[in-house]
Amino acid sequence: MTTRYKVVLAYDGTNFAGFQRQPHQRTVEQVVTKAVNKMAKDPTEPIVIYGAGRTDAGVHAFGQTLHFDLPYEINPEGVRRGLNSMLPMDTIIKAVTIVPNDFHARYDTVGKRYWYRAYQGEFVDPFKRHYTGHFKFNADIDRIQQAIGDLEGRHDFSTFVASGSQAHDHVREIYSAKAWALPDEHEIQFEFCGSGFLYNQVRIMVAVLMEIGQGRRSVDCIPALLATKDREQARGTAPAAGLYMKKVYYEQNELQADLIKY
Amino acid sequence: MTTRYKVVLAYDGTNFAGFQRQPHQRTVEQVVTKAVNKMAKDPTEPIVIYGAGRTDAGVHAFGQTLHFDLPYEINPEGVRRGLNSMLPMDTIIKAVTIVPNDFHARYDTVGKRYWYRAYQGEFVDPFKRHYTGHFKFNADIDRIQQAIGDLEGRHDFSTFVASGSQAHDHVREIYSAKAWALPDEHEIQFEFCGSGFLYNQVRIMVAVLMEIGQGRRSVDCIPALLATKDREQARGTAPAAGLYMKKVYYEQNELQADLIKY
Repeated sequence: MTTRYKVVLAYDGTNFAGFQRQPHQRTVEQVVTKAVNKMAKDPTEPIVIYGAGRTDAGVHAFGQTLHFDLPYEINPEGVRRGLNSMLPMDTIIKAVTIVPNDFHARYDTVGKRYWYRAYQGEFVDPFKRHYTGHFKFNADIDRIQQAIGDLEGRHDFSTFVASGSQAHDHVREIYSAKAWALPDEHEIQFEFCGSGFLYNQVRIMVAVLMEIGQGRRSVDCIPALLATKDREQARGTAPAAGLYMKKVYYEQNELQADLIKY
Repeated sequence: MTTRYKVVLAYDGTNFAGFQRQPHQRTVEQVVTKAVNKMAKDPTEPIVIYGAGRTDAGVHAFGQTLHFDLPYEINPEGVRRGLNSMLPMDTIIKAVTIVPNDFHARYDTVGKRYWYRAYQGEFVDPFKRHYTGHFKFNADIDRIQQAIGDLEGRHDFSTFVASGSQAHDHVREIYSAKAWALPDEHEIQFEFCGSGFLYNQVRIMVAVLMEIGQGRRSVDCIPALLATKDREQARGTAPAAGLYMKKVYYEQNELQADLIKY
């Protein structure tokens, strides 16, 4: 009888070649798998971890979620401390809980929340270079706020999916899309909460919104862009460094509570 | 006739082996010297830069200051943009001004200001690992605030100088020493403004203050520590990653104005 653990982890994506395991690359899946197996004293049957979703190279996470099974039951707090003492410094386990054996970190999600930080400046800020996307030309937050609501709702997001996507169905629902400016920080920030997101979808949406803010697209262009279902129409992809996987939801209650809160 | 330029620069110290040029090491002095000489189209007589002070490996700067001479006069704004387009992403020129030919970035200082960020947590925060010093055991800000004032004033800081120091005279004046807590960030921050600081002095003072906060030293220990003039009595050195060279002063007016402001 195995015990299933759900783990919420944060990582600085700067020095990772993304989440998913790849040969000869340092990935989040690889370092966490190694720590879990080391903690379990290298069992004969290697323990496999299942993440809620992939993140690209340079993309960060506050709330990536994964599950794995241990061949015995140990205290979740012991698992958290044990893994944290074995993981590298750019990765931290925030919470560990025991879940039913049919829980699945990827298939049981009811929503995900992403945060994006766009830095506006003539040159890159040394302290923000790994933690924001750099946009040289100023964007007008009013224009972005006028446009962003058109992304909310249930749409076919084929215009906003990168070519590497393996999804067949491009229909997703965005529950909430918000943008605000932090003038002292020279930042525009975005938050998107939705049923799920296609490959690079958030970064493509941010690129289009920044172009709207910069006056390079009209504020009412989004409905027409969605209707084309043509990725060539969106073109840009905002830099990976500004993107954060903020939270993965498994309970409707929690999702709805956050949608009211934000 | 040469023209002297004063330059204020910021850098993320994470990937530098400190400020000072060293063989086979990536240092701030080396990358800035290279950019200045490249901008000046590699003159027959190499241009030398003079910094206000050294910073150790991993130490950051918002306001490091340096000077150099160009064999001709060009627009300071052109120098700023030219250097920024040549410098690596972890370094940025914030301001360039033309100064009298007898100005010296090191010898003309009337004060310096340092900032320190101490992170309190069981494990290192992945997003703060390069930008704060990590302290596992909680410190009480009230105890630190009771003690820190004893560092202000003119003292022989021999207890607070690292063994590598080349200074003969260890008397320095601290104009202002402050500490405050940011509970949401799990940080205690410090700011020190003084006539000048000895090698590792700020990091040693922070280490002692954190020990006072943790109850490992008494709140009234500083006068006695200063009186011993014995480095062995202070022992610790706070991690480099939490230290920022915030500002270098060349004008009494500006220094006094900031002492009132902070």
